[in-house]
Amino acid sequence: MLQAIKERRSIRRYAGGSIAHDLIDAVLEAGRWAPSGLNNQPWRFAIVRDAEIRAKLGSFTHYGSIIKSSSVCVAVFLHLASGYDRDKDCMGIGACVQNMLLAAHSLGLGAVWLGEILKSKGEVARLLEVPDGLELMAVIALGLPGEEPESDRLPFDTLIVRKA
Amino acid sequence: MLQAIKERRSIRRYAGGSIAHDLIDAVLEAGRWAPSGLNNQPWRFAIVRDAEIRAKLGSFTHYGSIIKSSSVCVAVFLHLASGYDRDKDCMGIGACVQNMLLAAHSLGLGAVWLGEILKSKGEVARLLEVPDGLELMAVIALGLPGEEPESDRLPFDTLIVRKA
Repeated sequence: MLQAIKERRSIRRYAGGSIAHDLIDAVLEAGRWAPSGLNNQPWRFAIVRDAEIRAKLGSFTHYGSIIKSSSVCVAVFLHLASGYDRDKDCMGIGACVQNMLLAAHSLGLGAVWLGEILKSKGEVARLLEVPDGLELMAVIALGLPGEEPESDRLPFDTLIVRKA
Repeated sequence: MLQAIKERRSIRRYAGGSIAHDLIDAVLEAGRWAPSGLNNQPWRFAIVRDAEIRAKLGSFTHYGSIIKSSSVCVAVFLHLASGYDRDKDCMGIGACVQNMLLAAHSLGLGAVWLGEILKSKGEVARLLEVPDGLELMAVIALGLPGEEPESDRLPFDTLIVRKA
């Protein structure tokens, strides 16, 4: 677990090919088991496989090439009627997305969490024809990994503001 | 990974005893490797071991008995100067907390994500004497597990709003 958490990277280049439906379901299943405030589970998922729809989805962000070259995208929405506290709902969605990224990594998939597309959240909801009352919170692009990028983090001690 | 994600539960009763510093460091290290928008890593951590401080911390929430009976708490703060988008910063913090909960589970620890205490975020920051510019986002209570609770989630199909 600890190794997987540290080894996971945002994968933005893919090797092409399709991904079995079972694998995507396993990724979503991991998201489903995230914790949330009051166990309100405010997440909803739209699976986007169709290449034409993915091309349109990509047109809503500067990072559209990632979406277009991925094999599948999962758009993650906040179910507003389930929400009770914006900060806590967002944190729950974050936990859900992280479960999905870790699951994807453990299944040999590459994935990246895309946020810049939130500037077009209304357009995305209309494109994907999702029910009313859903607000886009993230798009996860998935594919077979086509790169092994480096990444870094702030030093451990920088993050600790109290030790006792 | 998938099994750990599904087996992890919020543990609110503990068996007592102390937890080695190495284990808590491993939990925080997992948090450190979470993804965040622009890789801004807006999380900061306060480790609270001292029983007297934990008792005071517990006085700020209805769930104080959990904090008092835990062995260690980790207060998670948003470093406001690192923030760039409230929703995305909150989602990043959520990913960070989830990494820590999964790490705790994998290390044999019990943990629970506490949010009700956010009503007292100013008091907590003062009690823990953290630097200015930090906003409390969550408290994680940790201890040796003293229960094996059940939990449930909405049915898988309920969460899927589009499939192609």
